[in-house]
Amino acid sequence: MSELLSRRDIDFLLYEWLDIESLTQRERFAEHSRETFDAVLDLSTDIATRYFATHNKKSDAHEPRILPDGTVALIEDIKTALDAYIASGLIAGEFDEAVGGMQLPTTVARASMAFFQAANAGTANYPFLTIANAHLIAAHGTDEQVNRYVRPMLEGRYFGTMCLSEPHAGSSLADITTRAERQADGTYRITGTKMWISGGDHDLSDNIVHLVLAKTPGGGAGVKSISLFIVPKYLTADSVCPQTTVRNDVVLSGLNHKMGNRGTTNAVLTFGDGTYTPGDQPGAVGYLVGEENRGLAYMFHMMNEARIGVGFLATALGYVGYLKSVEYTRARTQGRPPDLSGRDIAPVPLIEHADVRRMLLAQKSYVEGAMALGLYCARLVDEQASSSDPEQIRDAGLLLDVLTPIAKSWPSQWCLLANDLAIQTHGGYGYTRDYDVEQHYRDNRLNPIHEGTNGIQGIDLLGRKVRLHDGAGVQVLTARIAATVQRAQAGDPDAGRWAAQLHNVWDNVREVTTQLVNHNDRRLALANSSIYLDAVGHTLIAWMWLDQLNATGGRRGSFYAGKRAATRYFFTYELPKVSAQLDLLATMDTTTLDMHPDWF
Amino acid sequence: MSELLSRRDIDFLLYEWLDIESLTQRERFAEHSRETFDAVLDLSTDIATRYFATHNKKSDAHEPRILPDGTVALIEDIKTALDAYIASGLIAGEFDEAVGGMQLPTTVARASMAFFQAANAGTANYPFLTIANAHLIAAHGTDEQVNRYVRPMLEGRYFGTMCLSEPHAGSSLADITTRAERQADGTYRITGTKMWISGGDHDLSDNIVHLVLAKTPGGGAGVKSISLFIVPKYLTADSVCPQTTVRNDVVLSGLNHKMGNRGTTNAVLTFGDGTYTPGDQPGAVGYLVGEENRGLAYMFHMMNEARIGVGFLATALGYVGYLKSVEYTRARTQGRPPDLSGRDIAPVPLIEHADVRRMLLAQKSYVEGAMALGLYCARLVDEQASSSDPEQIRDAGLLLDVLTPIAKSWPSQWCLLANDLAIQTHGGYGYTRDYDVEQHYRDNRLNPIHEGTNGIQGIDLLGRKVRLHDGAGVQVLTARIAATVQRAQAGDPDAGRWAAQLHNVWDNVREVTTQLVNHNDRRLALANSSIYLDAVGHTLIAWMWLDQLNATGGRRGSFYAGKRAATRYFFTYELPKVSAQLDLLATMDTTTLDMHPDWF
Repeated sequence: MSELLSRRDIDFLLYEWLDIESLTQRERFAEHSRETFDAVLDLSTDIATRYFATHNKKSDAHEPRILPDGTVALIEDIKTALDAYIASGLIAGEFDEAVGGMQLPTTVARASMAFFQAANAGTANYPFLTIANAHLIAAHGTDEQVNRYVRPMLEGRYFGTMCLSEPHAGSSLADITTRAERQADGTYRITGTKMWISGGDHDLSDNIVHLVLAKTPGGGAGVKSISLFIVPKYLTADSVCPQTTVRNDVVLSGLNHKMGNRGTTNAVLTFGDGTYTPGDQPGAVGYLVGEENRGLAYMFHMMNEARIGVGFLATALGYVGYLKSVEYTRARTQGRPPDLSGRDIAPVPLIEHADVRRMLLAQKSYVEGAMALGLYCARLVDEQASSSDPEQIRDAGLLLDVLTPIAKSWPSQWCLLANDLAIQTHGGYGYTRDYDVEQHYRDNRLNPIHEGTNGIQGIDLLGRKVRLHDGAGVQVLTARIAATVQRAQAGDPDAGRWAAQLHNVWDNVREVTTQLVNHNDRRLALANSSIYLDAVGHTLIAWMWLDQLNATGGRRGSFYAGKRAATRYFFTYELPKVSAQLDLLATMDTTTLDMHPDWF
Repeated sequence: MSELLSRRDIDFLLYEWLDIESLTQRERFAEHSRETFDAVLDLSTDIATRYFATHNKKSDAHEPRILPDGTVALIEDIKTALDAYIASGLIAGEFDEAVGGMQLPTTVARASMAFFQAANAGTANYPFLTIANAHLIAAHGTDEQVNRYVRPMLEGRYFGTMCLSEPHAGSSLADITTRAERQADGTYRITGTKMWISGGDHDLSDNIVHLVLAKTPGGGAGVKSISLFIVPKYLTADSVCPQTTVRNDVVLSGLNHKMGNRGTTNAVLTFGDGTYTPGDQPGAVGYLVGEENRGLAYMFHMMNEARIGVGFLATALGYVGYLKSVEYTRARTQGRPPDLSGRDIAPVPLIEHADVRRMLLAQKSYVEGAMALGLYCARLVDEQASSSDPEQIRDAGLLLDVLTPIAKSWPSQWCLLANDLAIQTHGGYGYTRDYDVEQHYRDNRLNPIHEGTNGIQGIDLLGRKVRLHDGAGVQVLTARIAATVQRAQAGDPDAGRWAAQLHNVWDNVREVTTQLVNHNDRRLALANSSIYLDAVGHTLIAWMWLDQLNATGGRRGSFYAGKRAATRYFFTYELPKVSAQLDLLATMDTTTLDMHPDWF
């Protein structure tokens, strides 16, 4: 059986490329060492392999269903796997020791989670969401909220969700209609319906902590009146119900039946429809997080983290499919190369065919390139959390602003394509459920949609992120790319050629960026923001490859030769695609705007 | 509910573009008129809508399964739909009147079938395969074989399959091990196992006519000893069993469980394992088609037809998903355009967003472009069958040689992408099984794999087809493209610009073709044949769009405006992608060949 992720690659990225060992010299991570990091990765591999991968197919074939009593039935294996995960303590990995965490670098915590995502996306989603939820409350909640919700989540007793979308309002949060009414005791009563709630209901944990966006009366139109509330499934002893644990009025109204990602319940939840009346009053009890009307800002804290996490999920699924493709095409024989066609020789392994290698190199360049970008972002988070240099902290924040939409969208587009290629390299077998890759594709297909569709990431990047602080993020990025280019130019002729290529493309990206940002017709400037997103994404992944090549330092052996080959593939087959995209953007083309809906 | 295919578009393609009415002046089609063609299309739409589309989801959710008695259980709706189809007589549509057919143009028959493919790929596959099978026997079988198998198939009493692949030999037919031993009475006994047999077993028809490739002893190595046999599931009275209908020794060994296309049984069949002993002898009884050792040549007759048919299937699935996307995005409101963002106005329909329009225009350009190419090929088949001009017949054949790999692969790649975009335009709902588009994607994902993977189509195009007859096919194609370019240049400025663009790209395609064809290292020349296939495909679809634009003749109205907009989209967003591909091909890049399997 192939690995879930290449541990050799993860080690290279963490230690040889991002030098995370140096983090242990910082106060925040002083308790750690390479040994503790390695132990975390070993443990993650072990639990993911033994408990998560083993029921991946089973949870796909046995989706969650609602029992007659209204509860959700999940296969037992999910609970068993999550119990093993919780027992490991990994769920609290990157949290402060003060709240019971291990205070691991985010870089290590993300790499750890990626093993679980590769093994079983559906089951990994529960802790993934719980961690994101706990981060938000830890950052913006009161001490009491931290004690009441974060600590039980980090002990694995409570799980978390985020409740943003509604049936009529997916991407457009300005249009949500869920209401929150303040009560005399300072709590709120929530009424409304939320849609697409992953982990929205189940019996895997003692409680489910919903983070709910809702509008308070008089808060203004659009997103300005949105506040954020903690709405637990069960109310524990507090002012509303002093003595006992009672059921809050959060009701499962239905489950969505999806193409993939079937191990995660995805629910329609109704808040405050009167099924339960905690404290003998109508409405689901909610606790305000932070201040009123600032809910969206808090939620974006979680969203940005979740977006990078979705990028990792997409990457992990692409990665595991790639490794299975390599294993399959090494073992399976079929046909002969064209120059030997018709000869009376034995069929060769599929991996000997040029076109199969092309599909494998594409997968390798996508998944390892995406993993590099994800870990690079995680490293920036660590920089923010541990650096003592205000400029470094500022730069890390500026880079994260610009990189986040790409770290979400690029893997969810290209590592999905990696899964598509994984099916293709498996031939007819890849199309059957006897093999894993068709499920990886189906699971991965969610990622360009949730946490902001890729179209929305494009608007976020071009309409907001590259404009922030007068383009300071792009400036920092340009300096980083220039450093990579400079180092590569000092290397061998190939590296020098690729450096020049990247330098030119990035110059073009900046020119087009300036043109689009300064254009006075915002609608036209943003019309092709998806093309822009993809062009910038491909250019940055080329950067990631060149920077990895620099880190190989000319070392020999199969692993480094593979890094060089994938770099070569990306600069030869992929980066040249960007020119046509930038040309299109520079023409300020109006094809889509001129199109009339009746003409379709 | 949206249409299955746009009838307005089909009418445009058939009558305004391909002028199929003119075929009725030919002897072969003299009995027909536009009225009979229209009646066929009306009937197809009606039956496909009422009987096929209605159980598409149901057959996806209830896959075929093997009952304890070894027979296959299918949902009743499949039989009901096929009965309606058979009662219509459409199964015999394009066959000669002499064998009970309607002698319809292939162009009309393919358009008719496309409605069924759009409605329900799984159910449409049964007649699709039966028609292909009957064509082969009609072309290469004896009169007795035609009477015994073709006639019952055209009456819908027998269904047909093609049995090529084996568990260890999918793409590589040289490696099949199924054996055929000639008997004293001229029949053969077949032993072996066949894999991926669509429609391989079921109780939908009185009999199943398997067309089986097998090797005869002493026929030489590789593909040279392959012969083709009719192996019916039930033997009807003949020399082996003079009096009665007996079960032949063809046994269902298993069903493949697929990602999509679940309505079609896909079987592992064992021939001659002794479960049945017809005539009290071991082996499945087979009847030779044509001559020994020429089996592959006969099968390619069917394969070429089936490849174009797979292109239609991919196109139809892309097309129906596109129409559903248009319907959904017109009705569903979400957000506001960027220039109105934050304003207190009602959300707009999704179709108002530039990025959604881009995704719709992409789908439109892919599916209508692919439909044009498919019907263009079908029209060439009609030319071959009905022209009295030997040069026209020759040209049609040369064009079909070159176009077939593209007519198979391009739709199966780009109309699959259309389905992917259909999911994306539906947002989260597109990922659920409450909507249709995720199933269309899953059903369509088979098409780049079967009937020769797209990788094999690339090798077929570059390694064989463009070389045939000293490149005569490319020459004829060049003349046709030049005619389109010339006509467009006489049109409006846009058309003139696109004509120049196409002219230049096609010139580059020809240059690269010459370079690759003349290169002395065959392995290197073919290393990037998939890239070549895609580049040529995109260029030819651009041609299809420009030629359609010519056919609009400057007429006004939404329909023609849509054709112009899609042409504009394709020349602006799609055709420019080809340059980078041709540049790569021209460098004779060795990235894939230099890659060592250990480096992955």
